[in-house]
Amino acid sequence: DASGLHAPPEDTITMLIATDNHLGYMEKDPIRGDDSIRAFEEILKIAHKKNACNLRFFCDRRRGLKCWLLTKDPNQVDMILLGGDLFHDNKPSRKTLHSTMELLRAYCLGDRPCALDILSDQSINFPNRFATVNYQDPNLNVAMPIFSIHGNHDDPSGDGNLAALDLLSVTGLVNYFGRQREADAITMTPILLRKGATKLALYGLGNVRDERLHRTFLHKKVKMLRPLEATDEWFNLLTIHQNRVPHGKTNYIPETFLDPFVHLVLWGHEHECCIDPVFNSQQEFYVTQPGSSIATSLSEGEAVEKHVAVLRIHQTSFELEKIRLTSVRPFVIRDLVLGAIDGLREGDMKAATKLIVATIEDMVRSAVDEWIAEHPDLGPADAPVPLVRLKVEYTGFSTFNPQRFGQQFVGKVANPKDVVLFYRKRRAHVPKDAKAAAAPRAATAE
Amino acid sequence: DASGLHAPPEDTITMLIATDNHLGYMEKDPIRGDDSIRAFEEILKIAHKKNACNLRFFCDRRRGLKCWLLTKDPNQVDMILLGGDLFHDNKPSRKTLHSTMELLRAYCLGDRPCALDILSDQSINFPNRFATVNYQDPNLNVAMPIFSIHGNHDDPSGDGNLAALDLLSVTGLVNYFGRQREADAITMTPILLRKGATKLALYGLGNVRDERLHRTFLHKKVKMLRPLEATDEWFNLLTIHQNRVPHGKTNYIPETFLDPFVHLVLWGHEHECCIDPVFNSQQEFYVTQPGSSIATSLSEGEAVEKHVAVLRIHQTSFELEKIRLTSVRPFVIRDLVLGAIDGLREGDMKAATKLIVATIEDMVRSAVDEWIAEHPDLGPADAPVPLVRLKVEYTGFSTFNPQRFGQQFVGKVANPKDVVLFYRKRRAHVPKDAKAAAAPRAATAE
Ligand SMILES: [Mn+2]
Ligand SMILES: [Mn+2]
Ligand SMILES: [Mn+2]
Ligand SMILES: [Mn+2]
Repeated sequence: DASGLHAPPEDTITMLIATDNHLGYMEKDPIRGDDSIRAFEEILKIAHKKNACNLRFFCDRRRGLKCWLLTKDPNQVDMILLGGDLFHDNKPSRKTLHSTMELLRAYCLGDRPCALDILSDQSINFPNRFATVNYQDPNLNVAMPIFSIHGNHDDPSGDGNLAALDLLSVTGLVNYFGRQREADAITMTPILLRKGATKLALYGLGNVRDERLHRTFLHKKVKMLRPLEATDEWFNLLTIHQNRVPHGKTNYIPETFLDPFVHLVLWGHEHECCIDPVFNSQQEFYVTQPGSSIATSLSEGEAVEKHVAVLRIHQTSFELEKIRLTSVRPFVIRDLVLGAIDGLREGDMKAATKLIVATIEDMVRSAVDEWIAEHPDLGPADAPVPLVRLKVEYTGFSTFNPQRFGQQFVGKVANPKDVVLFYRKRRAHVPKDAKAAAAPRAATAE
Repeated sequence: DASGLHAPPEDTITMLIATDNHLGYMEKDPIRGDDSIRAFEEILKIAHKKNACNLRFFCDRRRGLKCWLLTKDPNQVDMILLGGDLFHDNKPSRKTLHSTMELLRAYCLGDRPCALDILSDQSINFPNRFATVNYQDPNLNVAMPIFSIHGNHDDPSGDGNLAALDLLSVTGLVNYFGRQREADAITMTPILLRKGATKLALYGLGNVRDERLHRTFLHKKVKMLRPLEATDEWFNLLTIHQNRVPHGKTNYIPETFLDPFVHLVLWGHEHECCIDPVFNSQQEFYVTQPGSSIATSLSEGEAVEKHVAVLRIHQTSFELEKIRLTSVRPFVIRDLVLGAIDGLREGDMKAATKLIVATIEDMVRSAVDEWIAEHPDLGPADAPVPLVRLKVEYTGFSTFNPQRFGQQFVGKVANPKDVVLFYRKRRAHVPKDAKAAAAPRAATAE
């Protein structure tokens, strides 16, 4: 039995995974307006060219193997799987819709036939007038099909209860799946795909309000249908778009709710890139959380380096190759506790301001330096203006207007209006250890 | 030299012409919400099946021949040409966009190769990322290409200066042309199409505000480029979307402004169906005004039977076969001058109301009867609820609340809220001849 790593390409389903592209985010911002589209184009290019050489995570459950390997693989990507929030706005602007459709037509259409057989009832998987996966429509040449669920940002709504993804689906640009008729009784029918010796059951559950889905799970009303024949030969991949981090008792979906026959969960909605598969020993499945391809908040989670991954599935084994996105605007976040700075006199706002300015300048420098190190082929002039967020704990000091203060950084940071965020820790006492006083790190689900 | 009528199909360019489909018009109305989409689907079906047998207008300029003939023709339609206002709203709802894209994918894509060679520079005709007519994109099978200009309802606007048609164009569903960079200096570059011995130069000018375009014409700043070779062998077809009927001195485009080398003008924007080609002897060209496929106002012009046409072009001759749309909701409009009714006592509102009710009932009956006569295969139960507008000249009488009055016709007419429109003619004197007192017939440009 061949391992995933050495499996022949004709028996390996290869897909690029990504999520939370938030197309159209801040589209009217003169600096950041194109960021979401640029990152999405980079993702499509990666899938299209697949010339990357990167770290791969290899897992074989039966053998108990798991490790990171540096390899190169000529295999082409068979499909792209997206975990929701493709669009930032429920009703994307005409401009964003246009840019998106333009990219999809440019990168997903082509002569190369898609090697994935589809064995499930397509009228159930894709319940629209055409009832077909796009690459089997005889009138469209789709080289690289995209499969996507919706997120909370781009869920079905309004007249006709349509999602923005329905416009991409009706034009044959995306295979929109995982939509449920009702939130209180959910039955997931997988898309059954086969390539040679590998069979993939692809499950999707578009975003449902967390409390409600939590209740539906508790009521045992979430069903995942499984193929009757050769049931254990399928690789079961589930895509969901929910809170993974608890926000209150019922405002998230515990991993333990998910069916343990699943091999891998692609978790959308959480914006922090935790793409390295994490094994849940209780459920015996892995979870990969690709994270967003654009920072939609200036929080620690969004500052983690952005990645997508190539997932290769061979029979019931998989390997995952993570790929850093290089077009993403650098984002540096730091925490400054004024009361913990040696030599800074309490209440001395002149000195504090000087320190804040120096810190921001240092953050800009380090962001640019890192970008240059990663782009040896490009010069400093090509480095994008970074996002910078300095959180300032100001107990014992006063504050200033961050927006006015930020004007001195116009042209140096991409977010001059909110570079500085003042906050106070809960207790009045200033600890010696600045780290302990740092603002608690919040989960960044969007 | 073969006439258009007897020309071999392989030398004849056949196109369906239509305009002002106003998709999405009154989409939230529970009765009329689907009317615009239904009419558009009928048009696509006609083009798709082309099994109609109808009156054709035959014209051969060189021979001085022109006449109407009843014939049948197996030729398939090579393309559809639309004259603007495909959408009613500049920003169509998601539902309308979705329905439109669904119809276009269903009817325009297909295996049959389009027989039209394209000889012009497509990057000039279709200045977008793909720079190609849709049926020559190797990734799309387009059997029946649509070419469209924009109207005043769906002109480019907003961020990116995009039109709704740009979304159809970027997905390859429509060939959007005739957009001008500036309104004060216009250069039309034709799409040059050839099929066998017939060469078509297709000119389009998307809507420009009438006063402005009028001025641009007066300043001789509207240029129509012509092919240098075999200049006189081209059939020159111009599509515009402007006021044809004068609204003030400069608020329309006189036909005499248009270049006389044109053979035929497809005039959009005017909603009255005047599809029979009218010869302009001064300019020596014909004008066909298909009119809208849906009534967007309850005026006389919109009550004229709705048609589209199949235009056949052979060398510099053309014939036009008009086809009545049968899915369009019947619309009856009448004028009632209370003061001219024999036996109706001045001021007797009880009798007047009775007369108004009886007239409306008669209008409903005649609308349904006519529909049944036209649909011998269908029963009276299938007849759609008609649009009814009774204009009441009430000099010497009082009025009532039309909306409240109309409630008795709910389920009998499609517009219960505005069945009756009271008006007073300008002069106080009531003439004997009711016709002369009728409200002046306004042009219905929308
Ligand atoms: Mn989300
Ligand atoms: Mn998100
Ligand atoms: Mn118009
Ligand atoms: Mn119109």
